[in-house]
Amino acid sequence: MSTGDDDNHGDPLQQQPEEEDGGGYGDVAVGGGLFSVPGYEWADVAALGPDVAGRAVRVRGAAHAVRAVGRRVAFLVLRQGSSTVQCVVGGGGGGGGGGDAGVARFAAGLSRESVVDVAGVVSLPREPVRGTTQQEVEIQVKKLYCISKATPNLPISVDDAARSEEDVVKAKAAGEQLVHVGQDKRLDFRVIDLRTPANQAIFRVQCEIENIFRQVLLSEGFVGIHTPKLIGGSSEGGAAVFKLDYNGQPACLAQSPQLHKQMAICGGFERVFEVGPVFRAEDSNTHRHLCEFVGLDMEMAIKDHYSEVCDVVDRLFVAMFDHLNKNCAKELEAINRQYPFKPLKYLPKTLRIEYDEGIRMLKEAGVHVEAMGDLNTESEKKLGELVHTKYDTDFYMLCRYPSAVRPFYTMPCSDDPRYSNSFDVFVRGEEIISGAQRVHVPEVLARQAEERGIDVGSIAAYVDAFRYGAPPHGGFGVGLERVVMLFCGLGNIRKASLFPRDPRRLNP
Amino acid sequence: MSTGDDDNHGDPLQQQPEEEDGGGYGDVAVGGGLFSVPGYEWADVAALGPDVAGRAVRVRGAAHAVRAVGRRVAFLVLRQGSSTVQCVVGGGGGGGGGGDAGVARFAAGLSRESVVDVAGVVSLPREPVRGTTQQEVEIQVKKLYCISKATPNLPISVDDAARSEEDVVKAKAAGEQLVHVGQDKRLDFRVIDLRTPANQAIFRVQCEIENIFRQVLLSEGFVGIHTPKLIGGSSEGGAAVFKLDYNGQPACLAQSPQLHKQMAICGGFERVFEVGPVFRAEDSNTHRHLCEFVGLDMEMAIKDHYSEVCDVVDRLFVAMFDHLNKNCAKELEAINRQYPFKPLKYLPKTLRIEYDEGIRMLKEAGVHVEAMGDLNTESEKKLGELVHTKYDTDFYMLCRYPSAVRPFYTMPCSDDPRYSNSFDVFVRGEEIISGAQRVHVPEVLARQAEERGIDVGSIAAYVDAFRYGAPPHGGFGVGLERVVMLFCGLGNIRKASLFPRDPRRLNP
Repeated sequence: MSTGDDDNHGDPLQQQPEEEDGGGYGDVAVGGGLFSVPGYEWADVAALGPDVAGRAVRVRGAAHAVRAVGRRVAFLVLRQGSSTVQCVVGGGGGGGGGGDAGVARFAAGLSRESVVDVAGVVSLPREPVRGTTQQEVEIQVKKLYCISKATPNLPISVDDAARSEEDVVKAKAAGEQLVHVGQDKRLDFRVIDLRTPANQAIFRVQCEIENIFRQVLLSEGFVGIHTPKLIGGSSEGGAAVFKLDYNGQPACLAQSPQLHKQMAICGGFERVFEVGPVFRAEDSNTHRHLCEFVGLDMEMAIKDHYSEVCDVVDRLFVAMFDHLNKNCAKELEAINRQYPFKPLKYLPKTLRIEYDEGIRMLKEAGVHVEAMGDLNTESEKKLGELVHTKYDTDFYMLCRYPSAVRPFYTMPCSDDPRYSNSFDVFVRGEEIISGAQRVHVPEVLARQAEERGIDVGSIAAYVDAFRYGAPPHGGFGVGLERVVMLFCGLGNIRKASLFPRDPRRLNP
Repeated sequence: MSTGDDDNHGDPLQQQPEEEDGGGYGDVAVGGGLFSVPGYEWADVAALGPDVAGRAVRVRGAAHAVRAVGRRVAFLVLRQGSSTVQCVVGGGGGGGGGGDAGVARFAAGLSRESVVDVAGVVSLPREPVRGTTQQEVEIQVKKLYCISKATPNLPISVDDAARSEEDVVKAKAAGEQLVHVGQDKRLDFRVIDLRTPANQAIFRVQCEIENIFRQVLLSEGFVGIHTPKLIGGSSEGGAAVFKLDYNGQPACLAQSPQLHKQMAICGGFERVFEVGPVFRAEDSNTHRHLCEFVGLDMEMAIKDHYSEVCDVVDRLFVAMFDHLNKNCAKELEAINRQYPFKPLKYLPKTLRIEYDEGIRMLKEAGVHVEAMGDLNTESEKKLGELVHTKYDTDFYMLCRYPSAVRPFYTMPCSDDPRYSNSFDVFVRGEEIISGAQRVHVPEVLARQAEERGIDVGSIAAYVDAFRYGAPPHGGFGVGLERVVMLFCGLGNIRKASLFPRDPRRLNP
């Protein structure tokens, strides 16, 4: 069927593919598939519309679907990102000396997901094309080259991976068996899974979230920094860390940029943020934990009150949600088609309630919670529902947590040290942000560590950072994947990570 | 001298500091130093100018310098970021019941680098203040509170750390011994060292470089991604990696996002970039190597020629250099004062020369180089000089490297496989970027790995990523710290890293 072409010569720009019939189609395996097709200009599938009808274009994309109609015609759906267009092969105008039958047979023999170059003329179909994103145009193919052959037996198909669970269930009810691709299999073959419209959208939304995080903070005078992920010593505050050998010294991977972003504040940078990986060696096999995730962190000098940090959270996330709803409508729609979710409800000025008030609401609703204890995931979920009912928002802050349930470096409230200048932020009943004012007084820091049974010697470097003059400061951290997951209601954080790492998964 | 205040009560906003004399000065140690001073509005030192003369302001900053003049007056230089202002304490208008002598004595006793709040009135000095950045105004202090006491014996002083080597040498010639703070000591006490004007500027420049990298790529349709740093297996292509135990599985830290950014391209994202840490366990104790640095990486589908990648490099870095010169003039000046450097010369359209031409130039200059061998650091430096002389630029690309000196996944030139579709970019004679078209054909990839003695089994996951259809693609990687170092001519990459990690340094 194909000649192959393992031995091209000549400048890549001048080089022509070896072709089946010397004129219009064939395989191009080496040399990067880089060759010119005079008379045809590169075009993007997404840009193809009636306004370019009649234009001679060249498009590179994946062979999303192929269907032969008789011996002389084949329909090829070409996919580029989330956009698809129908290409008519051999419909009278295609092929070289071999005639329509040759090129149609070549097209029909293309394995799905192969990368192909189509050169042809944009035309208007008699009626809108069904099943492609570009419905008002199709391409009458003149030349067709296979740039990269996909294996004929794909482990998963993009169509199967793109199907919603609802469609599988509906089909079953109608007696039809449709393939449902499980989460693990998707991840095993992530390069194929990522090609679905939902995944194309999810990671564009993720990118936008990071962009807004940066833009808002930069506009408020924050400086973007990068702190080390390799940390001296074999533990970082006691919890589960990944340990390694660093040229003979014990080291571990940073569980958060906490210490170093605070050091940057002590180093004279009034407001800093960081976007970078965070490592947790916890054996948490849940829908919301990863062993490696992207932390969005900030730290800032505080003037009058830790609510200044909450104010930034408020402005930042309201701007983010506004932006996503306004500028990522297409992406959110694509996600919604495969993973249906309700749009996030949030207020123009974010609701803040005190921890004690949250406890009161839970108790009134008959939930057993301890006044000064931590909330478990279930209670948080329930409180989210109560807040939603009472205040009509899925996004709120819970402030003034009991000191006992916060890290040793959290600043106690000056009016009652049993409480602390801290807050968590919730989306759809799940914790997404943890923030607080930090203790900037070395003596208090050492005392609070001691009270919690932490060996002060092991955190000496941390405490010492505050001995050379340290302004009052606070900040927060939030996981990028968690923002994506909860804004889009994905239900599993693995769907919001390009190549997730959990206690069981370290590949691909 | 100070009362201390370890037991404040009341809401932080209402709380007042315990004061030496009940009115105008004292220590505030706990409660975050958060209290209101009615009648005074927060101001930034950088914003203080003659236009706000007469205004009652409150400023928080570091006690950069203190000088007593007699018993009743003290001059306090307050520093905020890179800005300093002179504060006149006890000059007739200050203090409460204790009178000027009390507050002046309190000011004179402040340890350098302590964080203090000054409340006072902006006034115009009779002649410009010398030695501060704000020369046209000073502050007549009414109230003075110490928010965070620095230890009286600082391991290094900001003034010493801010001094240029030239000044130390000059002073020595004049018979004066000035302290020169060595690189290691600076890093040991990085929270103090970071407070120098040069360091405040360096990390703002670093932040801007990242911003421009992102902005230009986003504007060209790239999607920002995050790939995992924890990689399965105990090696990643053979070179020196940090190994660790991942819940019982062998793992290592990513030496580059190479594989995963290519997988993102195979996953249907046409153009991606990443900013993230890169880990190298090499024992390279040089001025230009770090064990952990920030990688700026991109990867893109190629249509006609790998020069499309070079085109992006060109647009990106010219935009970056233009931006820095235009918008970071103050920062560059601050860096220049401590670390003098010549402005970078670059062309509006970046010079590209072929590797063979570079070899020719070196040979003509009498440098011994092997035609198809790699260039060592010395030859690269020399070539940089030759290019500078001939083309008047410190920034250029060297293209079409011999295949033998590039990684196995580099696409060979189709007209002569001894050469490859690859390039390096140089700044001031040092390599800063490495880029290439990659092999996207699994069979060629396996063959090239084999030819270099790499066990194909060990890279099976990598090769398999290209079996499901892969577009021709290429990209590059550049170290953020190296861009900062070479643009600013810093001479040591440790100066461009907030908390550097080299083979000997893992702290702070």
